Amino acid sequence: MTFQSPVVRSITSLREVITGWYNNGKTVALVPTMGALHEGHLSLVELAQKKADHTVVSIFVNPAQFAPHEDLDTYPRDETADRNKLSHLRTNLIYAPPREQMYASDFSTKISVEGISNGLCGDSRPNFFSGVATVVCKLLLQVSPNFAIFGEKDYQQLMVIRRMVRDLDIPVQIIGAPIIREADGLAMSSRNAYLSEQERSLAPKLQETIHSMAVNIAMGEPIGDQLQLGITSLKADGFKVDYLEARDANNLAPIYSSGPVHKTKLPAIRIFAAAYLGKTRLIDNVAVPAAKSQ
Amino acid sequence: MTFQSPVVRSITSLREVITGWYNNGKTVALVPTMGALHEGHLSLVELAQKKADHTVVSIFVNPAQFAPHEDLDTYPRDETADRNKLSHLRTNLIYAPPREQMYASDFSTKISVEGISNGLCGDSRPNFFSGVATVVCKLLLQVSPNFAIFGEKDYQQLMVIRRMVRDLDIPVQIIGAPIIREADGLAMSSRNAYLSEQERSLAPKLQETIHSMAVNIAMGEPIGDQLQLGITSLKADGFKVDYLEARDANNLAPIYSSGPVHKTKLPAIRIFAAAYLGKTRLIDNVAVPAAKSQ
Repeated sequence: MTFQSPVVRSITSLREVITGWYNNGKTVALVPTMGALHEGHLSLVELAQKKADHTVVSIFVNPAQFAPHEDLDTYPRDETADRNKLSHLRTNLIYAPPREQMYASDFSTKISVEGISNGLCGDSRPNFFSGVATVVCKLLLQVSPNFAIFGEKDYQQLMVIRRMVRDLDIPVQIIGAPIIREADGLAMSSRNAYLSEQERSLAPKLQETIHSMAVNIAMGEPIGDQLQLGITSLKADGFKVDYLEARDANNLAPIYSSGPVHKTKLPAIRIFAAAYLGKTRLIDNVAVPAAKSQ
Repeated sequence: MTFQSPVVRSITSLREVITGWYNNGKTVALVPTMGALHEGHLSLVELAQKKADHTVVSIFVNPAQFAPHEDLDTYPRDETADRNKLSHLRTNLIYAPPREQMYASDFSTKISVEGISNGLCGDSRPNFFSGVATVVCKLLLQVSPNFAIFGEKDYQQLMVIRRMVRDLDIPVQIIGAPIIREADGLAMSSRNAYLSEQERSLAPKLQETIHSMAVNIAMGEPIGDQLQLGITSLKADGFKVDYLEARDANNLAPIYSSGPVHKTKLPAIRIFAAAYLGKTRLIDNVAVPAAKSQ
C-alpha cells in the first residue's frame, strides 16, 4: 500500500484543503467518527465516496458526550490502525483535531435538542445527546461538507442530528446508513472490544430478540406482549435490560398499543434496545417490516 | 427615491442571491435586526457597507427571545418604514422571513451560552440569551456572511454571540459597533417609543449617571462607592433600577473592589445599567476610560 491519507489537525489547514476542493467544483462528504474504526465505519466511508467527489473522515473522541462514570479514558484509541484502514480505502483527508482545539478552556456553548433527545439513550445518558449535537455542529461548520453520513446503529443520534440540522439551517444533507453486523448478527461497535469471550458468544441474542419481535409485530402480534416477551427473553439470556421499546421511526414518539397492530394506521415502527452484558452496554435497533397492503 | 431594496422571505431565495454574490467574488455583511429601525440600526448598516461589498439586513421579531410577560405582541413593527430607510441607504437585500419559516411547529433545538449569559440581563430575562443565540446562529447559517454587525448597546448580547461563534466555529467575523445616542445622550432604542413625554425627559439621566461613574472610577474613586452613589442617584431621578454593575469588558466577569482602583492591574472595565421608567425597561453601558500610564 503506497497511498497514505493525509492528516490535518488544525481548522485552518482543514479549511484550506476544503476550500481548494470547492474552488475546483468538487463535492465533499464528511464521516464523523471517534476512531477505533471497524467495518461499520468503513461502510460509511464507502457510502460517502459514492455520494461525493471527496471524503473527509474526522477522528475525535468527544469528551462532552461521556458522563463522568463512563469510559472516556478507556475508550479504544489506535490512530495508526485507523489511518491504515482509511488509507486502504483511499480516503482523501483525515481530520484529527486535538482536544484543546475543539474545546477552549472557557468553552461555554451547548446545543440541546428537546423532545427527540428524551427517552431511550437520553434517559440513561442525560448529557449524551447535547454533547453529540454540539460536537457534530462544530464538525459540520468546520468541514462545511455537502453530505454527512451517520450510521443507523445510533438511530436516536441520527434523528437528533437531523432535527438540529433542520432547526439551525446548517447547509448539509444528512444521510443515514444501515447497520453493519458481524456474521452472527451482532451489530458492529467499537465497544464490542470490551466483551469477554463468553459475553461475546451471548451478544448476538440482542439482535435475535429484537428481530423476532419485529417479525411478530409485523404479523399482527400485540406490541405490548412482544415487549414483555423480549425483556423476559433477554434477561434469561443474561442481559441487564436498560430499555426495550417500540417507537415511531420518523419522530421517535412512543407507540402505545396493547392490542394487535392495525398496520395500515400505524406509522413506521422501529424496535430499540439497550442492554448490558457485564459492564458493556450494547445498543441495537431494527425496523418492523412494512405492512402489506390489505 | 427610485432605488428600492429587494426583499426576500424564503431561505431558498436568500441563498440564491448570496451564492450569486459569492460566485462573483463579492464579500457579504449581515446586520440582524428586529425592525423598528432607528439611527442606531442605520449606523450598523453604514458600517456593514464599509466592511463588505454587499449588505443584507434581516428583519425578524424573534418570539424565542421574549418571555410570556414581555412585549412581543406590542413590539413596534413597520416594515414599510423600515424598507424606505434601508432603500435610502441602498441596502442590497432585506431578508424578512415569516415566523413559520424560522420555527417549524416541532422546532426543538436550543443553543445556550453558559457563564457569559448569566448576570446582568440574563438574570431578569432568563431565556433571553438562549433565544438570541439560537436565532442569530440560524441567521448566520442562512445568510453565511463574511461579517455580522451588532451594536454595543446590547453589549452582553454581543459577547454571547462572539462566544457562540467562536465555540461553534461559525465561519464569520463578528463586529461590534458603538452606541448611537440622541442629542441629549439617551441611547437609541426601538423601545424608547414606549416612553411618555415626561419619562422621555428623564431618560437621559441613565446615561449621565453611568458616564459620570465611569469618569470617577477612572480618576481613582472606589468602584463600590460609585455603584452605591449611582443607584441612589437613579432612584432619586425616578428610575426603578434592575441592575447597575461594573464588569470586565472582555469576559463580563464581575469586578469586586471596594477600595480605589489600581488601574494598571485591572482589566478594561465597563459599567452596565438596566432600569425602568414606568413600564419601559432601558439599558445602557459605557467604558471606563483607559488608565494613563503611570
